[in-house]
Amino acid sequence: MILNLPVVAPVDLTLAEALRAKLDGKAKPLGSLGRLERLALQLGLIQGRLDPRIGGVCVQVYAGDHGLNAEGVSAYPSAVTAAMVATYLMGRACVNAFAAVTEVEVGVIDAGVDADLVSHPDLIDAKVRKGSRNAAREPALTAAEVAEALMRGVQFGAEARADVVALGEMGIGNTASAALIMHRLLPASLEDCVGLGAGHDAAGLARKMAAVQAAGARSLAKAPLDVLAEFGGLEIVMLAGAAIGAASTGKVVLVDGFITTIAVLAAIRLQPAVRDYCVFAHASAERGHRLVLESLDAEPLLDLGLRLGEGTGAVLAAPLLRAAARLLTDVADLSEVLAGSAG
Amino acid sequence: MILNLPVVAPVDLTLAEALRAKLDGKAKPLGSLGRLERLALQLGLIQGRLDPRIGGVCVQVYAGDHGLNAEGVSAYPSAVTAAMVATYLMGRACVNAFAAVTEVEVGVIDAGVDADLVSHPDLIDAKVRKGSRNAAREPALTAAEVAEALMRGVQFGAEARADVVALGEMGIGNTASAALIMHRLLPASLEDCVGLGAGHDAAGLARKMAAVQAAGARSLAKAPLDVLAEFGGLEIVMLAGAAIGAASTGKVVLVDGFITTIAVLAAIRLQPAVRDYCVFAHASAERGHRLVLESLDAEPLLDLGLRLGEGTGAVLAAPLLRAAARLLTDVADLSEVLAGSAG
Repeated sequence: MILNLPVVAPVDLTLAEALRAKLDGKAKPLGSLGRLERLALQLGLIQGRLDPRIGGVCVQVYAGDHGLNAEGVSAYPSAVTAAMVATYLMGRACVNAFAAVTEVEVGVIDAGVDADLVSHPDLIDAKVRKGSRNAAREPALTAAEVAEALMRGVQFGAEARADVVALGEMGIGNTASAALIMHRLLPASLEDCVGLGAGHDAAGLARKMAAVQAAGARSLAKAPLDVLAEFGGLEIVMLAGAAIGAASTGKVVLVDGFITTIAVLAAIRLQPAVRDYCVFAHASAERGHRLVLESLDAEPLLDLGLRLGEGTGAVLAAPLLRAAARLLTDVADLSEVLAGSAG
Repeated sequence: MILNLPVVAPVDLTLAEALRAKLDGKAKPLGSLGRLERLALQLGLIQGRLDPRIGGVCVQVYAGDHGLNAEGVSAYPSAVTAAMVATYLMGRACVNAFAAVTEVEVGVIDAGVDADLVSHPDLIDAKVRKGSRNAAREPALTAAEVAEALMRGVQFGAEARADVVALGEMGIGNTASAALIMHRLLPASLEDCVGLGAGHDAAGLARKMAAVQAAGARSLAKAPLDVLAEFGGLEIVMLAGAAIGAASTGKVVLVDGFITTIAVLAAIRLQPAVRDYCVFAHASAERGHRLVLESLDAEPLLDLGLRLGEGTGAVLAAPLLRAAARLLTDVADLSEVLAGSAG
């Protein structure tokens, strides 16, 4: 498969001054909406207009399994990935509950679940293979598998009928895979990248650390595509593609927690302008997330101690994007208010 | 007027264990929704049920003027209060734009605007007087005015047809009034309570500090009702009443920024159980807010650098309350998921 990534154009910064002036003219004290004003500015730049609109928001939940889980890197067995996919499709997971509140459309993509999933109208079958290989022993994915996952993700991100594509994931063991990718791409020490994931006692964390150290010792890969192949995670690779695809079509990429941030980090290493389109929904409780957010100069919107994944944090942040856009489009100017003619 | 505050019953903590067990049994790693789980627990306790429902949310924006503004405590003239009220009624202020996104009903109450407002179907006329007196020179309100404002607020909070009453305010000069109330009720030094408000240069801040020092030097009041009378703000007093009224009828009190937190502080000093019903929406950029939040052991949901008021932060937090309730009512148990029978 030939890797033919779409071009992602940096946002046009010439609009920034007019956006700032428009925000400053609104009926509120200067700068009094803090982070929300910076978000409004970014939305205007992404859409290239002074009146950005956030209509449809979708969350794409990419699911995949990890051969590395054989080393005990998670407190849960890989079978939980398929069970959670079934729960999303029944509309009974946390992401569904939150998406119902914030009017976000939930899509589920099988990027590489290690099970034969029952077909369902809301499930996209994009399975590249049944789980990645055990990265502690061999490369998790081949170059061709990485390319396929990436290009499928590009397609899903590009074709999404929404102004905002929120990224979510499910994959037992995927914080270990993400930690390895972060370790090489940031770069940072493995100690700074490995956290408790879905939950570990001391023995579990030691197992996880030993497994990622074994995987890390096996390869010196540093280039993004090589790193993705070595330490893989089909859902992570497909997420990276989705970020590129969404950004290439001028959509906002709403990034959830640790795993999706690492996927987006890979996307940015492949196509740096992807960064311009990213809004980081929240600061996860997972160790390593704050460090990678800092390295991306990212200012997360929420800080609620979430560490669930599924896109839950991104879905919760969606109303803030809509509110920021409305600030530009719906709020009177201070001059109108003071003239007693806000109508 | 006789002050006959309704009884606010503390929440019944016997339900806490069952709520925690229900949250722990949900299809997610233990504790992985962080702050949202604590919010869900609180909502269950407030409603006294394992399946709390957050249906209607309203924001009540109380408006009033301050005689103290004659001392130059704000960068804006008092006439802006009435102009902003007109803007709320036209649906063109920030609170309206955000409330449209988060499906919150906006109500506007004239607690004491220093102008003859044109009547409007969405404006509640509860004007006690045209602005408070200049607290730097004399008590801002009489005991009778405090009682009237408080009891009107109680009525509005109690009669609100909503599960959540979000509190908002508009009143040029009211950070100065709030700082004085905080100074006496917390207590804390005036330096810790006085901030930039809607915006000040060094000279403006010095004027504000001189005015609040003059007001503070005039009276040794410490009892809540006396403090409210001395340093007043009819919208602040009415907000305190609204918190008591909403809590007395088992509703969630969703607190916005600095001013409303100070009003709620007064309410809690009058009726300590009000605290059980309070959810603090955000940490304001206004100096003093973090200190009073800490003193109330409050854990704000958002931290976006907002310092606007109007209830904007509370309105933005509304979806988080709905999501937290849905966690208890809509999400499958982990045992169902693992049994492969989440349906």
